[in-house]
Amino acid sequence: MIQSVDRAIRVLGVLQGARLLSLSEVAARLELPPSTVHGIIKTLLAHGMVVQDRATARYRLGPAVLKLGNVYLDTLELRSHTLSWSPELARRTGFAVRTGVALPDEVMIIHHEPRPDGSRQMPEVGIVIPIHASALGKVILAYSPELSDGLGSGELRSMTGDTVTDANALREQLTAVRTNALATEQEEAVLGECGLAAPIFDATGAVAGAIGVVVPMLEWPAEGAVATAVREAARNISRELGAPRWPGA
Amino acid sequence: MIQSVDRAIRVLGVLQGARLLSLSEVAARLELPPSTVHGIIKTLLAHGMVVQDRATARYRLGPAVLKLGNVYLDTLELRSHTLSWSPELARRTGFAVRTGVALPDEVMIIHHEPRPDGSRQMPEVGIVIPIHASALGKVILAYSPELSDGLGSGELRSMTGDTVTDANALREQLTAVRTNALATEQEEAVLGECGLAAPIFDATGAVAGAIGVVVPMLEWPAEGAVATAVREAARNISRELGAPRWPGA
Repeated sequence: MIQSVDRAIRVLGVLQGARLLSLSEVAARLELPPSTVHGIIKTLLAHGMVVQDRATARYRLGPAVLKLGNVYLDTLELRSHTLSWSPELARRTGFAVRTGVALPDEVMIIHHEPRPDGSRQMPEVGIVIPIHASALGKVILAYSPELSDGLGSGELRSMTGDTVTDANALREQLTAVRTNALATEQEEAVLGECGLAAPIFDATGAVAGAIGVVVPMLEWPAEGAVATAVREAARNISRELGAPRWPGA
Repeated sequence: MIQSVDRAIRVLGVLQGARLLSLSEVAARLELPPSTVHGIIKTLLAHGMVVQDRATARYRLGPAVLKLGNVYLDTLELRSHTLSWSPELARRTGFAVRTGVALPDEVMIIHHEPRPDGSRQMPEVGIVIPIHASALGKVILAYSPELSDGLGSGELRSMTGDTVTDANALREQLTAVRTNALATEQEEAVLGECGLAAPIFDATGAVAGAIGVVVPMLEWPAEGAVATAVREAARNISRELGAPRWPGA
């Protein structure tokens, strides 16, 4: 660990959370002297990672981080295969399709295929969902001992009244997820929103991410053909990534 | 400038360009000892800014950069106003609409409204275009002396046979751009693609970005009503951002 690099990334993290901060606000949040933070911000400014708001003189994230994010998406082998299978899964099921990868505590959406009903839908790429509160996250956790060990035995953050907040109860769900290679979510992250997801494996046999459909509460439970279609998409993408096997297949 | 922070951002930049590199390849490109680069990469790995490819042990950008990029978009006041005006501009003109902001030598697309003909179109957010070869870029340059001074007097990078590569010729175009608050592009960045763009100003009176339409070569030149619609959208967004005036208005 190089201390100043670690601090620079934490400056970006603080701006990620708070959006617009003065130098002294950043320094206070990181419990660092303003002079230390000033040197870091000057370096981040020079590269466009941070910009200074003209009107308020406060700092926010800069355009260079979006460029990095876009290249990250382009380099993701998982994403290129997802792009080719998602439209079919949306068509077969009639639901919006999401593919996600794991951050330590969250799932990040790396592809979003809108529900094929022609309605105007907000793009979701780059959005994060708590890993324990989503079908995508649960299916990744079920096959990632290093992540599920990190759940501990305490309380998990509640998003709705139906979020599973007991780590041991969640661990029991993960055992069931492994039986069917399928996780479900019933208004655990967002009210009115349910879902199904299946794991995607890479050439090393490790879980690379998950693909799933978003099912409105009024249409839940989805019929069995939807689960079959989700599992088939996940298996097909895994095969293209060179996965040696897929659970039960 | 803090040297190790500067180096860490340059590591990200090298991975942005090359996508998948070994430690020694990163070190060679930055002309740094591998041990120095190793410490930086370890720190970037710990924050998910970089990940190590399981199969090849090479490094690439990590999911944390996408999350930063998404927050950057969300915090951009320009973008929220663009979101509300772009659908109308696409409907009035029948063309795809792009909004861009300046990086030092490039324009980055921060919003893309697809051409309203129901065709499947690749999302363009996060994509960059050379600033001198695009209508969006030229209109930003025309109102940014600090950027246009940086063009120098030498050769600009050629993208197609029609890119304006002479800095002085481009500067003459910028004078004309200021007369109409409108820039054009005729297959200068991409063959088959033309465009029109107008400047967006913020509350300080500085240019915050540009909005424009993408016109296929076969439909070029666009009729006068298209230029009017582009200028009106730019003026409306500028007014919402608190711009004290708009050229000629």
